[in-house]
Formats: sequence, C-alpha cells, structure tokens
Amino acid sequence: MEEKVKISMLCQLYGKLLTKKQFEFIDHYYNNDLSLSEIAENNNITRQAVRDIIKKGEKKLFEYEEKLMFMKRMLNQQKKIEKALSELTKIQKDSSDKQVANVLESIKKELNCLV
Amino acid sequence: MEEKVKISMLCQLYGKLLTKKQFEFIDHYYNNDLSLSEIAENNNITRQAVRDIIKKGEKKLFEYEEKLMFMKRMLNQQKKIEKALSELTKIQKDSSDKQVANVLESIKKELNCLV
Repeated sequence: MEEKVKISMLCQLYGKLLTKKQFEFIDHYYNNDLSLSEIAENNNITRQAVRDIIKKGEKKLFEYEEKLMFMKRMLNQQKKIEKALSELTKIQKDSSDKQVANVLESIKKELNCLV
Repeated sequence: MEEKVKISMLCQLYGKLLTKKQFEFIDHYYNNDLSLSEIAENNNITRQAVRDIIKKGEKKLFEYEEKLMFMKRMLNQQKKIEKALSELTKIQKDSSDKQVANVLESIKKELNCLV
C-alpha cells in the first residue's frame, strides 16, 4: 500500500489519539493536499516546525498500529468479506430461484456496509 | 453487556496501550479470577495499591474506547455478520442444488472467522 494512503488510513483510525495540531496538520497534508509551506503560512509557523509536528504524529500513528494492529485486522477482514461478496454474486447470478436471489441481495447489502 | 465482560474485551483490544502492571493486574483480576488480595500477595504490595492500579488501567481502557470506538464497531460488525450467516444457513437448507450449498458452506466458514 502506498505510504500516503497508509498514513491517511492510520490517521482515520487513530487520529483521536494525536494532539490537535498533529491531527490537523496530517489531515491537511495527506487528505487535503496542502503543502508544508501552505500549512506553515496558515499557522504562522516555519515549514520545518510543520514538518516536525507531522513527523511526530506519523511516528505515533505507526506505533499505535504496531501495538493494536487495527488496520491490519480491518484489511484482513475486508479481504474476507469481499471474497464472500464475490462468491455470493456468482451464486446469485446462477440462481434461477428469485426468492433466493433476493435474500442474497439483502445479505450482500448488509456485508457491503462492512467494506 | 456485563461490566466484567466489557472490561475483559477492552483489555484484549487496548491492553497493549496500558502499562505492564495495569495489563497484568486487569488480566489476573478479570480473566483469571484472582482476587485483589491474591494479586497483592503475589506482588508484595497492598490490596489498595492493586485496586488503584486496576482502576487507573480501567479508566484508560474506557478512554481509549471513547475515542476510538473499536469495540463498538467490532460488535456492530459481528451483529451484521451473524445476521448474514443465519440467512445464509436458511438458504443453504432450502437449496436443492448441492453445488450451491457447498459454496455457501465455504462462504460461511470464511465469515465465521470474523465473529
């Protein structure tokens, strides 16, 4: 997974454990595509200070993931659910029983909320 | 959910963010059914000190859950998967197509790993 996507996901999962500034800067930098200079200017601090705060926040995010592994578990879970969904779609297509197809559709909808 | 079960689950999820002593005492008290006095004796400290360490650890667990809500999300997810599983079992029972029943069985196995 691309580093940028990874940090963005980790921030979604563990962002509430960061300081307000760490969360805000990481969010601006990785999710809103603001440059370090833009964030610096908006906050009246140096570009280097922004970089330091982001780096410190990232380090914390990776430490949380190393300990809790929620992203790893979540991705593993999503893979399994996606596999189940694709198999359910196959059965659904092959099924001549309309009632079965309808129930499968509703199960798929439920599972789709989880990925 | 019973408080004891809740703390035990929270400790499984966030235990790695506690201090070693907090984790160990909560684990002994809630999962291994040791009394405060037994833990105190094993660690050569007072019963009150054990209680304080456990209370502090519990407070942290609840704070993590309040911020991250992983237990809430997990329980919500489990409920949806369990519902899907029970519906799949119904279809499976009604299905006269052996191949379909087999595929459903394998999907159920995959999903069962998630609850």
